[in-house]
Amino acid sequence: MIIVMQARATEADVEYVSRRIEELGLTPHVSRGTERILIGVIGDERLVNRDQLTLLPHVEEVIPILKPYKLASREFQPADSIVSVAGVPIGGNEVVVIAGPCSVEDEEQIVTAAIAVKAAGARLLRGGAYKPRTSPYVFQGLGEEGLKLLARAREKTGLGIVTEVMESSEVDVVAEYADLLQVGARNMQNTKLLRSLSKIDKPVLLKRGPAATLNEFLMSAEYLLSGGNHRVILCERGIRTFVEYTRNTLDLNVVPAVKQLSHLPIIVDPSHGTGRHDLVVPMSRAAIAAGADGLLVEVHPAPEKALSDGEQSLKPAAFADLMREVRCIAPAVGRSVASPAATASGRESARTV
Amino acid sequence: MIIVMQARATEADVEYVSRRIEELGLTPHVSRGTERILIGVIGDERLVNRDQLTLLPHVEEVIPILKPYKLASREFQPADSIVSVAGVPIGGNEVVVIAGPCSVEDEEQIVTAAIAVKAAGARLLRGGAYKPRTSPYVFQGLGEEGLKLLARAREKTGLGIVTEVMESSEVDVVAEYADLLQVGARNMQNTKLLRSLSKIDKPVLLKRGPAATLNEFLMSAEYLLSGGNHRVILCERGIRTFVEYTRNTLDLNVVPAVKQLSHLPIIVDPSHGTGRHDLVVPMSRAAIAAGADGLLVEVHPAPEKALSDGEQSLKPAAFADLMREVRCIAPAVGRSVASPAATASGRESARTV
Amino acid sequence: MIIVMQARATEADVEYVSRRIEELGLTPHVSRGTERILIGVIGDERLVNRDQLTLLPHVEEVIPILKPYKLASREFQPADSIVSVAGVPIGGNEVVVIAGPCSVEDEEQIVTAAIAVKAAGARLLRGGAYKPRTSPYVFQGLGEEGLKLLARAREKTGLGIVTEVMESSEVDVVAEYADLLQVGARNMQNTKLLRSLSKIDKPVLLKRGPAATLNEFLMSAEYLLSGGNHRVILCERGIRTFVEYTRNTLDLNVVPAVKQLSHLPIIVDPSHGTGRHDLVVPMSRAAIAAGADGLLVEVHPAPEKALSDGEQSLKPAAFADLMREVRCIAPAVGRSVASPAATASGRESARTV
Amino acid sequence: MIIVMQARATEADVEYVSRRIEELGLTPHVSRGTERILIGVIGDERLVNRDQLTLLPHVEEVIPILKPYKLASREFQPADSIVSVAGVPIGGNEVVVIAGPCSVEDEEQIVTAAIAVKAAGARLLRGGAYKPRTSPYVFQGLGEEGLKLLARAREKTGLGIVTEVMESSEVDVVAEYADLLQVGARNMQNTKLLRSLSKIDKPVLLKRGPAATLNEFLMSAEYLLSGGNHRVILCERGIRTFVEYTRNTLDLNVVPAVKQLSHLPIIVDPSHGTGRHDLVVPMSRAAIAAGADGLLVEVHPAPEKALSDGEQSLKPAAFADLMREVRCIAPAVGRSVASPAATASGRESARTV
Repeated sequence: MIIVMQARATEADVEYVSRRIEELGLTPHVSRGTERILIGVIGDERLVNRDQLTLLPHVEEVIPILKPYKLASREFQPADSIVSVAGVPIGGNEVVVIAGPCSVEDEEQIVTAAIAVKAAGARLLRGGAYKPRTSPYVFQGLGEEGLKLLARAREKTGLGIVTEVMESSEVDVVAEYADLLQVGARNMQNTKLLRSLSKIDKPVLLKRGPAATLNEFLMSAEYLLSGGNHRVILCERGIRTFVEYTRNTLDLNVVPAVKQLSHLPIIVDPSHGTGRHDLVVPMSRAAIAAGADGLLVEVHPAPEKALSDGEQSLKPAAFADLMREVRCIAPAVGRSVASPAATASGRESARTV
Repeated sequence: MIIVMQARATEADVEYVSRRIEELGLTPHVSRGTERILIGVIGDERLVNRDQLTLLPHVEEVIPILKPYKLASREFQPADSIVSVAGVPIGGNEVVVIAGPCSVEDEEQIVTAAIAVKAAGARLLRGGAYKPRTSPYVFQGLGEEGLKLLARAREKTGLGIVTEVMESSEVDVVAEYADLLQVGARNMQNTKLLRSLSKIDKPVLLKRGPAATLNEFLMSAEYLLSGGNHRVILCERGIRTFVEYTRNTLDLNVVPAVKQLSHLPIIVDPSHGTGRHDLVVPMSRAAIAAGADGLLVEVHPAPEKALSDGEQSLKPAAFADLMREVRCIAPAVGRSVASPAATASGRESARTV
Repeated sequence: MIIVMQARATEADVEYVSRRIEELGLTPHVSRGTERILIGVIGDERLVNRDQLTLLPHVEEVIPILKPYKLASREFQPADSIVSVAGVPIGGNEVVVIAGPCSVEDEEQIVTAAIAVKAAGARLLRGGAYKPRTSPYVFQGLGEEGLKLLARAREKTGLGIVTEVMESSEVDVVAEYADLLQVGARNMQNTKLLRSLSKIDKPVLLKRGPAATLNEFLMSAEYLLSGGNHRVILCERGIRTFVEYTRNTLDLNVVPAVKQLSHLPIIVDPSHGTGRHDLVVPMSRAAIAAGADGLLVEVHPAPEKALSDGEQSLKPAAFADLMREVRCIAPAVGRSVASPAATASGRESARTV
Repeated sequence: MIIVMQARATEADVEYVSRRIEELGLTPHVSRGTERILIGVIGDERLVNRDQLTLLPHVEEVIPILKPYKLASREFQPADSIVSVAGVPIGGNEVVVIAGPCSVEDEEQIVTAAIAVKAAGARLLRGGAYKPRTSPYVFQGLGEEGLKLLARAREKTGLGIVTEVMESSEVDVVAEYADLLQVGARNMQNTKLLRSLSKIDKPVLLKRGPAATLNEFLMSAEYLLSGGNHRVILCERGIRTFVEYTRNTLDLNVVPAVKQLSHLPIIVDPSHGTGRHDLVVPMSRAAIAAGADGLLVEVHPAPEKALSDGEQSLKPAAFADLMREVRCIAPAVGRSVASPAATASGRESARTV
């Protein structure tokens, strides 16, 4: 941390601030510039409440030097983490595609979807049982019944299942069924939920909030990691901007940015990220080209009858086209996409968790 | 709802879409322009899943005409709602100031703060017991112990208490102590929490999420109203933008916009809204000038020792200054600010809930 | 400037960077923390190209300490600047209202508007002759003919005139007629135009770009100041955000933020800032309460027939209401609003330019 | 255009509005819903000033149906436009890479850069002679001298040159030297500049403004097209959002969105788009995967000595790596990247302009 003193700060002010830094168990280091005096703070700044320094007399600004997260950082763990979900490694050489409907609606729908996405090459099945919806007047998901139907689809296809959990009281029931528990974008900073999920023995898919900075995104991952759950997969799904032609602005820049700062795998959801089925294919290609470890794609047997998110869902045939395109792009970045029956293995240097 | 057909749509397409509209229990009304054919949908469009029409063949766009919320709209209830909190009416002629520390830290701190804010003219006491924090490594609130300390401060000062509830499983315990339950910005779309709060007999303070549109904000209110809780107070607390000089961008435009579209009271939180104690006073004045029904202000006896949000907290003396300024501004917009002992009464035409 | 070295940087790297700093004519000051080595750069960092340090080996980050602007800063000039426009001081105790139509359309329109706004208490007349429009198919302004009509309205009413200049080749002709030359939001970073305006003997109204940070805004002012024109007035007119209920998001937070960092006066344009005539009055009140030195308001004798921006224009009667409200608010913040004939005088401590 | 009447509108209001529509030369078509009466406006809505309808009594909202641009739309011209720049077709099957330094600094620098980028496979040379800079205290470009140096580099390498023009008075001199004239992001809505460029016989590269919607972007293209210059190439270079890890947020979603709505080619500038040299390669790959027709990349022989934008510039060796990656990705989307000597030909169905 660097403390910038105001131009009018006196030596007495500098001494006062220095003493306060010492009282907090840290060491001050004064540097006198031509226009400002700076005080470097030596020690682990993550343990200090920044405001306790900002508000001291004649302090102009307090600038953090270290990233606020530790366990999520690549500095802490240089090798890529590979997270295994129902036997499918995410974060290794293989680009993993997760697909399925926004909501589980009935057995026929979810089983049909599961068979279709498996046939096209998806490795895991997604489907929502607990649905956070903007409007109280629309379908809110089947709840535990939906989880059972997902389990049914898993039995029939062998695909591991990915589904959202909305609050800590439901973690146990969702964990009983799911292979990968999803934290939705609206819940990225639901710290109670994150704490509960940090205690379970199942991997977690953490979606980025629509207004989350990268620091905030990785700090939410840090809740999971610091609580003891190291099986964390990040997911970019669009941020909120002024742009009018997409529901959200899928921000692919975050993919290489995460790869530099963190060892965690990151996948991309082009369906929520754009809100438009006709942009899903090009943005899926782009996500993989940017370095994403996988995709999360909405596929519905009959999108025009879907109870939620039809506009951004692909029909099975369009999803098969997407998989064909993905199979062209992945090798161009040195990655593979498994054919349905294949088993993938991780990178040599990586650490499977 | 208006369905815009693509330029190349044929009469057969128009008929197909019209039939589909009829199957949904609505009536189509075709209008032929020079470049496009439009189909008006007559009936309650809120009950239709828009995607079910968007995805029909040769549909270019589906434009909603009605607002998605109903109970929250001024069209539904033309008179202002006045929500009574521990006997203090919010939404009437009086501009109500709620003040106190970000977090409850110990008995001395909260009681000192309560006495100070009451002396300056605050009508309700705020203080967090359950704290959603960005970092897992910092103070997360005292939990139920914090609620007890708030109750202690209420006993000593008579001020009603306002505190955050973070998930549905905690609604009961928080409702036992609080006079007004706050839904934090990060939880604005936590639909489980909203549903739980819609069933209790206590008013709710709903903070706007940092990326929430006005439609989304009022739809979250709609969750509370449609579940049966009509005692809803809205709160603007800053949105996320590119701006660098404030932590959030306090968006005062939403105040008159809400007043036109909704009957619900709206207050403003300039502390979170700007993140800077030195902007709290001017933006408090501006909020009232824009028509806000009250303020939510962070006040701490010793901000430089606060366990959270010190940088945006006022000292008691600065808060007393703020109250003096507020007492100058309110009459300029035809509103009053109660002196500590006063009792306020609502507007004639309003409906107290 | 602070250079943060990467964790793996060696002493040799530190020495290399230090030597490079010395070559740039500055002095390095090394500070060894527990996790990072920092190098403070002593000297005027504004003269150094930051990238020349960022790209040195094993540099993690370069953090600027000083603001990039100098002449615009309050540190450079502690007293408020008061800018006199046709005898009307802006930035002093008086809140100055500038009003008139978006575009000059014909003599009757501009003269009618001028008489009406003067009668209501406006001190200067606005009107566009050169119009930057989003669409090439709509009215683009009358050009020099519009300037002549403005001069006509000035003759008839005595009101000084404010009008936009769009490029450097037109500075002379606009300066011949205008009392205050406006740089539109789209041109805030048109550096050729700024340089031309820095050489004239007329004051400049600099509108904030819709995506401009405060640093960028003040740096554009710095172009004017460093070129020799000290008569600069800033204007907030809304930023671009995700918000859907206003055309732009009027950001009043910038008003007190500018007041802290700069000595320049700042006025607010609630017409463009909201794009809605029904929000102009509440946001005008709020602007003054936040500390604005004036308002820029669109008024049209018949907005429904206006050739541009009708939706955000007030009719003369609504503008008279606005002036009444402004006259209530200004005294509540210790400011005055002149009645039409009055002459205002500046604050004691201020410096009229 | 659809006019939504307020709930309280009477038949007389509907008639009044209908009459007004007829006066504007259009035909009204009334549709009575259960909660609102709608009036469809039949005729070319682009020629009507929307506000003239919005402000009529009891009108709630006016919703445009048609896009505001015409010549830029794919509806107007279904086949892709291919724009030839110094013999290099942009918008055809070949992905064209344009590279070079941010600013022309001296002959050695620009010639060295030109030789290096040509050797790696770039097809055109970029370099700024007129530079719009945020700060008045830094290098502002060499002006015409810079144009001459660019011409020198063209002589030596045969590469066509791309350079920015900042105002209409400089169009002639820049057109004398440049093969492709660039409109910078800050000037996207400089309508005088656009009008001047619409009259020349050289192609124009139009960069998207940092806060420009797609409608605004295409409307700026419409200025060029409607003035008679059909040789327009669009360029995405990042938008302004809240995101902190990139200088701008490169918005690749715009690429497929443009491809649907417009026939114009679009290229991507990952250098300005991210502001980080370490993100340029992954985002270049992603741009091509999303469907971009080319790249605009900053390359400098010695970025750490660059007078501008060093942090986002690649060294020649890194650029050669980029070209290798681009050569892997392009075929995966069915496109080619020319080897230095190759000549490309356009798609069959496209229209070269």
